Amino acid sequence: MSDIILDSKADQLADVRAQRFSTGRATVEALEEILYEPIKVLDHGFVRIVDYMGDDGAVVQAARVSYGKGTKKVNQDQGLINYLMRHRHTTPFEMCDIKLHIKLPIFVARQWIRHRTASVNEYSARYSILDKEFYIPEPQHLAAQSEVNNQGRGNVLVGAEAEHVLTLLKQDSVQAYSHYQDMLNLDENGQILDENRSGLARELARMELPVNYYTQWYWKINLHNLMHFLSLRADSHAQYEIRVYAEAMLDIMRRWVPLTYHAFTEYRQQGAHLSKTGLQAVRRMIKGEIVTQENSGLTSREWGELIKILETE
Amino acid sequence: MSDIILDSKADQLADVRAQRFSTGRATVEALEEILYEPIKVLDHGFVRIVDYMGDDGAVVQAARVSYGKGTKKVNQDQGLINYLMRHRHTTPFEMCDIKLHIKLPIFVARQWIRHRTASVNEYSARYSILDKEFYIPEPQHLAAQSEVNNQGRGNVLVGAEAEHVLTLLKQDSVQAYSHYQDMLNLDENGQILDENRSGLARELARMELPVNYYTQWYWKINLHNLMHFLSLRADSHAQYEIRVYAEAMLDIMRRWVPLTYHAFTEYRQQGAHLSKTGLQAVRRMIKGEIVTQENSGLTSREWGELIKILETE
Amino acid sequence: MSDIILDSKADQLADVRAQRFSTGRATVEALEEILYEPIKVLDHGFVRIVDYMGDDGAVVQAARVSYGKGTKKVNQDQGLINYLMRHRHTTPFEMCDIKLHIKLPIFVARQWIRHRTASVNEYSARYSILDKEFYIPEPQHLAAQSEVNNQGRGNVLVGAEAEHVLTLLKQDSVQAYSHYQDMLNLDENGQILDENRSGLARELARMELPVNYYTQWYWKINLHNLMHFLSLRADSHAQYEIRVYAEAMLDIMRRWVPLTYHAFTEYRQQGAHLSKTGLQAVRRMIKGEIVTQENSGLTSREWGELIKILETE
Amino acid sequence: MSDIILDSKADQLADVRAQRFSTGRATVEALEEILYEPIKVLDHGFVRIVDYMGDDGAVVQAARVSYGKGTKKVNQDQGLINYLMRHRHTTPFEMCDIKLHIKLPIFVARQWIRHRTASVNEYSARYSILDKEFYIPEPQHLAAQSEVNNQGRGNVLVGAEAEHVLTLLKQDSVQAYSHYQDMLNLDENGQILDENRSGLARELARMELPVNYYTQWYWKINLHNLMHFLSLRADSHAQYEIRVYAEAMLDIMRRWVPLTYHAFTEYRQQGAHLSKTGLQAVRRMIKGEIVTQENSGLTSREWGELIKILETE
Repeated sequence: MSDIILDSKADQLADVRAQRFSTGRATVEALEEILYEPIKVLDHGFVRIVDYMGDDGAVVQAARVSYGKGTKKVNQDQGLINYLMRHRHTTPFEMCDIKLHIKLPIFVARQWIRHRTASVNEYSARYSILDKEFYIPEPQHLAAQSEVNNQGRGNVLVGAEAEHVLTLLKQDSVQAYSHYQDMLNLDENGQILDENRSGLARELARMELPVNYYTQWYWKINLHNLMHFLSLRADSHAQYEIRVYAEAMLDIMRRWVPLTYHAFTEYRQQGAHLSKTGLQAVRRMIKGEIVTQENSGLTSREWGELIKILETE
Repeated sequence: MSDIILDSKADQLADVRAQRFSTGRATVEALEEILYEPIKVLDHGFVRIVDYMGDDGAVVQAARVSYGKGTKKVNQDQGLINYLMRHRHTTPFEMCDIKLHIKLPIFVARQWIRHRTASVNEYSARYSILDKEFYIPEPQHLAAQSEVNNQGRGNVLVGAEAEHVLTLLKQDSVQAYSHYQDMLNLDENGQILDENRSGLARELARMELPVNYYTQWYWKINLHNLMHFLSLRADSHAQYEIRVYAEAMLDIMRRWVPLTYHAFTEYRQQGAHLSKTGLQAVRRMIKGEIVTQENSGLTSREWGELIKILETE
Repeated sequence: MSDIILDSKADQLADVRAQRFSTGRATVEALEEILYEPIKVLDHGFVRIVDYMGDDGAVVQAARVSYGKGTKKVNQDQGLINYLMRHRHTTPFEMCDIKLHIKLPIFVARQWIRHRTASVNEYSARYSILDKEFYIPEPQHLAAQSEVNNQGRGNVLVGAEAEHVLTLLKQDSVQAYSHYQDMLNLDENGQILDENRSGLARELARMELPVNYYTQWYWKINLHNLMHFLSLRADSHAQYEIRVYAEAMLDIMRRWVPLTYHAFTEYRQQGAHLSKTGLQAVRRMIKGEIVTQENSGLTSREWGELIKILETE
Repeated sequence: MSDIILDSKADQLADVRAQRFSTGRATVEALEEILYEPIKVLDHGFVRIVDYMGDDGAVVQAARVSYGKGTKKVNQDQGLINYLMRHRHTTPFEMCDIKLHIKLPIFVARQWIRHRTASVNEYSARYSILDKEFYIPEPQHLAAQSEVNNQGRGNVLVGAEAEHVLTLLKQDSVQAYSHYQDMLNLDENGQILDENRSGLARELARMELPVNYYTQWYWKINLHNLMHFLSLRADSHAQYEIRVYAEAMLDIMRRWVPLTYHAFTEYRQQGAHLSKTGLQAVRRMIKGEIVTQENSGLTSREWGELIKILETE
């Protein structure tokens, strides 16, 4: 459907983009520039800004429960936003919202939806017929199971195994869609196949399709909850296929609220949380003591995590 | 503080109002006209639109998970919105948001905040000194306790009793503020009273003030949750002092999303829910049977509620 | 996996069930009787009560902000609960919680999760290998697309078409699992297939499986939100495959909170909401006027809905 | 009212406590011991456990989406809970709930209610008459405004100023209640004062009372959200009058879920979050470099916060 939307309705889309209105609301020029533009993610997915409310000034304004545009001097606004971020005063960040149109594989949608603090309207496969669009990983993302992490990826598959896996994925995806259409009593052009058949209900036929098929939704979230989403999903532990969406949204956030983005990067994304025992180890290290896992009180896994934090440049 | 905001910063407010931006976002002219304008409520309160996102078209658009402006014909949009409202398809209404600046008595704020589905930034009496502004009811709203409803108002107080009550309220409110300032070691002009005293912490001194004192906050809510709030608080059972705020917001809603407002009025506010037994009684009435409370299966209270629904014009 | 849980660990399950503790908390005997017992739904699914908090008395108690067990007389408790339900005083119903272990097809899980007011822990296909269990409709549930309702089912498919559809569903489900195992480098017994292959990461291999495969989760929800879920999903417009879960949970609710169940049935499930214009038509009917769609002010669809409400026995 | 509840209904309370039921649910003996017992906080407040669901085992169980009691070995459960806490896998902690009856001053309730992720039933001053109970700080908590922190306390007030402030608070509290009763047309024994007066509606008369008056509510929250509440409100930056409630709840949590309590203490409460620039400074310190505020890239306030973290024992 999305290609139908973005191709056959291209004229209408152009119309929408061309329309400009006059508003007294907080407006972000850098976001207006990419409003309605699909930003490509994975092979057939995208993220597209549909609407937004507020800017960095709205965060400052809410923090001051004042009506103006905050202080005029940017460094004061940055200082206040840094303070809010550092001290977990999160409510002012709830005062900004963004609404995105997203196209994504079903298995990504299933992870995504676990974040319950957003509003969602998803394309309904009870009501409409899904498009023939499915996700096939690029060869460099076709990873083996990690041997050290139950929930992660290891080396990239190569050679015959890679080819074998890709062939299975593609063939089965194509076959599933062909059978999906058959169940619906449709030919490959979407025309009725056999006048004597009824066609299975769409809400049942969809059962045939695997979770690499694409769905799409409108997704609206406030800035506070967006940062929570991004801190988990733009993280290196997140599955690649959702991380690329998070990264696209990080770029959007940087355009939208640059001061908040800076504070988010400085105080959350690139900072680190140390445990009570981890802190004690750090204090001893600073005093020049030789601290080892054995005398640190940390488990070997925790010790590994601490060392990684302390060694990263 | 609010008067300080709205008076001494009047120039800055005028500046804000005068600024216009160009946007590609959904824009509602009727709302732009009253953006930032305080709408007076009670003796010192107000509701003021700070920002908004979306319009009726955004509801339609989300329902269609499409990108455009919905169908061009208004009657089709109205029909779809009516359908959504009637069948409780509530998620498309979550796609619109409004942010209001509200000044209200503390006891109203305490009822209000029980709606947990909004974002709030309240003026902090730990951080700042409250203004000398308190709510005193108009004589026509000075009601006696209802004798039939534990939670409601009866006749208006008159004569000596009314005067007595108003005098107590006013005197005590004035006295409380005077003592509040005294505890803070401030004179009535807000200047330090006595160099040899420290002044009580603001977070403690505020304990002195009664709940008819005004507070203020930024409050952001989506259209779905706003309608839930309004269906409870613009209702005749709601306390007068919160109902007037709800009524001001109903007016705002009518300007903002006229099609949704129409559907809300038709299908929720002015409709009624009948119980299983109430419905059975109605079916018998339509058949021409004589239905009484006794043979209806309803309690006398339920019977009274049903008759009231059926008799209202 | 669930069958593994419920079969191979049967002894442990028996152990759990046999253990009894002494508690001072509100306890519901009728629920204790079926605690931990899987209630079968669809071909491989189930609903199983893992824990619960509160009972009808807890609703009454919260409504009274009192500490006792509410009034001793059941009819007073029923009256209060009816009142709360009728007047949408919903917060006391939030004071009871239930935690369920549910096994359900992925496409059902995708509808279900749109209710955001519950806590969920789902079986992770990043971490673990899914079982070979998929949903195949019973012949009597293999329905054609409705011709009048875009979102519903029509007649049951019969004969060759039914057989054809079932064959496709079964074959493709079996084949998908076989290829899933192949990608994971596992044979059909779950043993390593080829020492020279790495096996695709589980988080990628799962993409191969269609949405009729079963997943499972722990799902915790309060009584208020449960009723909201049930009012939508035990409704005749809900898809059959989720409705059967809702019906199983209605039975659980009836055991758990019989007074609340009664009020829910009387005031919500079997009642009806009339619009402003619908009410006007009813008032005229009661007066003996001949009301038709044309003179009612209702659209033909609304008129049909009203007539259906008024004719149901 | 609460004293009425806890005194005049003492027999009934004893009854409730004496009743024991047999359950198959997870049960925590250390919590059963204090079930229904009011734990005194401030001069007239309390926290009282009304019900709970789940234990440490329920967290483990949800994390494993398994049905049993988790592993038998406590150290494995502690290890898993530590892992969940460290890596912000928060959903398993949502699977436990606690319901508390709390009596607290209105100004504390106003801070408290800003946490929107709990269920609340509050004593209604529209419906009932408030008790004559108000909070007066102990002399050692009668603090001056901090001169360095706009939102905090400085030295304790002493001598004449302390006496003056306490006298104002007490006199005004007593007077407010006397006038409250007068407005309600009640004498000090709660009897009708004057047959010829109507008495002001309770929903209006309550306006007279200051925010140091006590209210009470039932408050139900899951373990995840409780920890969020405690991390903010048991913190040294929280106002003393809410912190003492948080501390009472920390004790309750320690009894309820000792493994989770340990992880919470180790990984959150007594740990610390370092910013990107703060981490860089720490890395340089460990290498033996002389790091000063000037060459650290931190603001002086951030530097102060970092030094405090590194110096705490």
